[in-house]
Order: sequence, then structure tokens, then C-alpha cells
Amino acid sequence: MNHYKLAFIGFGNVGKALARLLLQKQDEIRSQYGITFSTTGITTGRHGSAINPDGIDLESVLDLLNADGSLQDLSKLPQIQDASNFLQHCDANVLFENTPVNYANGQPALDHLKVALELGMHAITANKGPVVHAYRQLSELAVSKDRKFLFESTVMDGAPIFSLFRTALPAARVRAFQGILNSTTNLILCRMETGESFHQAVAFAQSIGIAETDPSGDIEGWDAAIKVACLVNVLMGIPLKPDQVARQGIRQISPSDLAQAQAQGKRWKLVCSASNENGVVQAQVKPEMIGPDSPMFNIEGTTSIVQFESDVLGLLSIIESDPGPHTTAYGLLADFLNAVRP
Amino acid sequence: MNHYKLAFIGFGNVGKALARLLLQKQDEIRSQYGITFSTTGITTGRHGSAINPDGIDLESVLDLLNADGSLQDLSKLPQIQDASNFLQHCDANVLFENTPVNYANGQPALDHLKVALELGMHAITANKGPVVHAYRQLSELAVSKDRKFLFESTVMDGAPIFSLFRTALPAARVRAFQGILNSTTNLILCRMETGESFHQAVAFAQSIGIAETDPSGDIEGWDAAIKVACLVNVLMGIPLKPDQVARQGIRQISPSDLAQAQAQGKRWKLVCSASNENGVVQAQVKPEMIGPDSPMFNIEGTTSIVQFESDVLGLLSIIESDPGPHTTAYGLLADFLNAVRP
Repeated sequence: MNHYKLAFIGFGNVGKALARLLLQKQDEIRSQYGITFSTTGITTGRHGSAINPDGIDLESVLDLLNADGSLQDLSKLPQIQDASNFLQHCDANVLFENTPVNYANGQPALDHLKVALELGMHAITANKGPVVHAYRQLSELAVSKDRKFLFESTVMDGAPIFSLFRTALPAARVRAFQGILNSTTNLILCRMETGESFHQAVAFAQSIGIAETDPSGDIEGWDAAIKVACLVNVLMGIPLKPDQVARQGIRQISPSDLAQAQAQGKRWKLVCSASNENGVVQAQVKPEMIGPDSPMFNIEGTTSIVQFESDVLGLLSIIESDPGPHTTAYGLLADFLNAVRP
Repeated sequence: MNHYKLAFIGFGNVGKALARLLLQKQDEIRSQYGITFSTTGITTGRHGSAINPDGIDLESVLDLLNADGSLQDLSKLPQIQDASNFLQHCDANVLFENTPVNYANGQPALDHLKVALELGMHAITANKGPVVHAYRQLSELAVSKDRKFLFESTVMDGAPIFSLFRTALPAARVRAFQGILNSTTNLILCRMETGESFHQAVAFAQSIGIAETDPSGDIEGWDAAIKVACLVNVLMGIPLKPDQVARQGIRQISPSDLAQAQAQGKRWKLVCSASNENGVVQAQVKPEMIGPDSPMFNIEGTTSIVQFESDVLGLLSIIESDPGPHTTAYGLLADFLNAVRP
């Protein structure tokens, strides 16, 4: 039986969903993999932090946060604001990093992950920033410490993308990919096809918690470009920054554009794509008219798809339907189990 | 550097494609995984057998078979007809088993795999028979010998299905799946939609080598039912034989049925499905009318799809386009690498 001590930096919707999933799956994980775990540290932006070497009860954490309380009540140590200091004190084996990130530099997530790896923890995140800004650096650090830097949930939530090529598809080289990777814009385009205006569709996406108050990161294709950069960095092994992705958002797609496409039996989709020709990558995010012969045609709402061309298989497509914090949380759990299981 | 000795029983189109892939990928596999390999035994139905502890050159094998020659010329030992005897003499670490199989009992593949495991080899096959008839038995034997019994290519060729749940999706429980898993019937239905008769469509499928001379195994849904049974046995952990799958083929689907569906914006597809309710499995293969909201709608020709419902993700769909002997061969190569890499 192997026991692992877990630490959380950031404990929003995804952190809560992960806590619920850990509680739900703990017996199964013990019996199936011989793995047990306890939580020794949690630090949050608005609810304080807790460190307890004997284990923090996740049920109590969820109850406290539900009641808008402070984690201080569960801590054996005085409050620690500084994340690096927190990591040094919580004596964990695994860090789940889920803080708000600055996409210009991947911070503060990048530093959190670096400190965790240097302290000998496995470093797991759902943040795309550290992947696009420091994939190679963090991966090399992880190797040097015999630990893992994993980030399955950064693209298509918990759907297996990175782990697919890491484990299930050995010796496969990704030549190109294309897909629909931003839920918000796909939902907006689908709503506009049914007659809503752009602003109505944005408002709907905001009302269900998919789009942010300032939705420009999605609308202008930034989120999609960051995901493209993640895939290129990791699956093609080529450093590429989001601003190197040719990028066009959906703002100029009008209801009449959508109607014209529909009249031709087609649909406008915000398509992400990249291809690698002898080490030179062409990557782009732009609206394209898609016909019914493509699996991208009937991708509805918040569903996403990616299609890979490799040197060993024909086109391999992965579609994830019904995403949410629980599927992102599953990606984090899968990373944990893949990092530690024999 | 780890060296592995490979043996082949059966060396038809898939065996040849695997030989070409091994030749193509050997340098990459050495540099990426520190794995080298040689072929110490090949036995075929019509071209004799070869055993050579110093390694049989796969280029020479392909040339010989191309010229309809006998492998005897490459052998250091006298010809051995009996497969068990062959395995005992070829001193291999890995068996690739690809012989014509009897689906009623999984033989002779089942015995080949059993002998290989008992001799301490990893046992890899593209044959569904042994999976539906002896998944548990062969898996337990493999565990007892600290070896692997792997069969990725049995369902959707080289697309990662079994390895997905074995490696990329830890602690996920498959509750249900549905999909289009038989290429021949899907191709026939697609051709009939464009105006061909059933017999014309069957003849076309035969002309491109997809359908057999007696196509009834595909047409009547047996191949699909066997694949359903494979998935249920392995991914749900429940023994199920192909004759326990409620089965209806495509013979009764007429051109006018297809036209009526098209008039409603739908298509007839031969849908495979299974669900597990508290350990009770309902499994079936039957033609269904599919609307454009399903990713099954635009599965064309020999493309295949499977959609998984699990306890941790929404619907996860995998689509494989452009299959062929080379993608089946890749599944076998992936099994080999996954069996032996650290």
C-alpha cells in the first residue's frame, strides 16, 4: 500500500470538484491500485489556508467553503500567505495547482509548480499558462527530480489527450491536428444559428458560467490559441507561444453569415489547427465553414473535438461531450494516479 | 538498452504490414525507448516457417513472400509444422499471433497465446476469438507469468481503445458504450444510400478487399457482436459470449428504407451498444436510424466510432478514419512497446 500526501493551491470550482471526486473514489483507488492519500495542505485566494500533517478532512473543507468560512479553523499551523512557504510546510508528495493565471507569463502557477518539483512533489495543474511558457523547463526539472509534471486538464478537460500519446500511442508522431477547442465560441455560434444575436448568445454563455464577465479571451480566439500552443509544445515537441498562432476570433461572424452557410448545408466553426512540416509549424485559429462530411459539423454547444493526423494511424478523432468542473477534476485525478501508480 | 526477440505465427497482410512498420520504426524505437529487437521465428500457413536465433532479416522475408517463396530458405532449423513445437524452438520474448481463427472457440489462436505465455513470452494478437473466449484465463495466466496479454487491434484496428482505459483513464468505470464497429456493413449502407443495390454494394466491398467471399459474418452482425463481446469482457469485466449479444444484421434494410430515412434527414447505421446496470449487461447489434445530432451520423465508409459513457467523464467518442492493415499493424506494435517499455 502506497500513501500519498496531497496539497492544493487554489480551491475554486475545480478544486471542490476534485475534492468530491477524491472522496467518491478513495475506496476504489485503494482496492484497485493499492494507493491511499491524505490532504496535508490547502491554500486559497479568499478562504485562507490550512496545513495539517495528520490530514485535513475534505468533507469538512467542502462544508466550510460552502458556508463561506475560513480554512484557518482546520489548520495546525498559523496562516501562511506565501505559496512557496506554504509548499515548504505542507510536506506533500503531490501538488494540485489551480490558481487564476496570467497568460502573458504563466504566473504565479509556473512558480508554484517549479517550487513543488524542486521540493520533490509531483506537479499537476489544469493551468495552460505554465505549459505554453515553460513546458520544456518544467518537464526537464521533473525528470531531474524523478517526478512528474502533468496537465491533462488543460485541453478538453478530462478527455485523454496528452496521456493518449504518452501512454496509449507509443512511437506515434503527430503531423497535424485540427479541432474545436473553445466551448464558449462554439456555444455562441450554435445559439446564433437558432436566431439569437451575438450579444444574446454571449449573455447566455455568461449566465450558465461558461463565459467570463469579459468574454474577449474566448471571443477573440486567445483561449483557443493557447490550447493550440499547448498541443504543439507537448505533442509536436516544438516551442510555440500563443502569439505565434495566427488568430482570428468570431466577432465578425454575423447572423447572415451563419444563415448563408446553413443554406449551403454548412456551419461556421472556430477551427484550431496546426501542422508540422519538417519541424516548421503552421498554427492557426480561425472561423471556417464546415460541411457535414466532417465530424466537426455536428459538434454542438460546449462539446469539443480534436482530430490527429499521425504517421501510424489514419485520422484519429476524440470528442468530449458534457464537460464541466467534474471532468476537469477527473483529468487532475487521472494525472495523480498516472504519476504515482506502479 | 533492452533487446527483445520476436516470433510471428501467421504472416498475412497484417503480418507483412507489421514487418514494414518494425523496419520503418526501428531506429526511432531504439533512440526513444532504448529498445532493440530481432525476429527469431516466423511460421505461416502457406509459406513454411523459419527459425534463426541470430535473427531473421524482415526485408528478406518480405521479398521472399512477395516472390511467393518459402521461408525455409531463411531457417537454421528444419521445418516445424506444429505451432507449440515452433514456439518452444524459437526462443522469443514476444509472440505476434495473427492466424485465421475459429470464432466458435477462438482456436487455434487461443492455444498459441497460452503456450507463448507459459513459455514466458508476451502474447499479442489481433484476433478477437481468444478475447471473447478466454480473456480472463489468458489475463490471469499472463499475470502469473509477469507477462502481458494484449490485443489492441481487435476492435477499431490500431485506434487506442483498450490501452485508453488501461493507461490514460485510470479509475474510470465504463457504464455503457455505443458505436459503429463493422466497416463492411457501414460501407455497404453508405453505397446503398447513393443508389447501389445491396448486391452491388457487397460486390464493391469485396472488390476492395474489405468484405470476404462469404460476407455473412459481417452482414448478419456477427463481427460486430464479437467486438461488442470483446469490449464488454475487457472494459466492463463481465464475461459475455457473442451469442449473448442480441443481434440483427443489415440484410433486411432496403433501398427504400434508406431513402425514407434520408427524407427525414436521417441515416440507417448498424449500431453496436451495451450497458451495464449493476452488473447486468444488455448488449446488442442492430440497425438504427441516426439523426444529425449524433457523431454516428456522418461516419462514412470504413470509418468507425465508439462512444463511452463512464462515471467520470461525459460522453467520450473515438473515431478512426482510413483503417487498413497498416493501422492494425500499428496496434500490434503499440502492444509490443506497451508490454516491454519501462
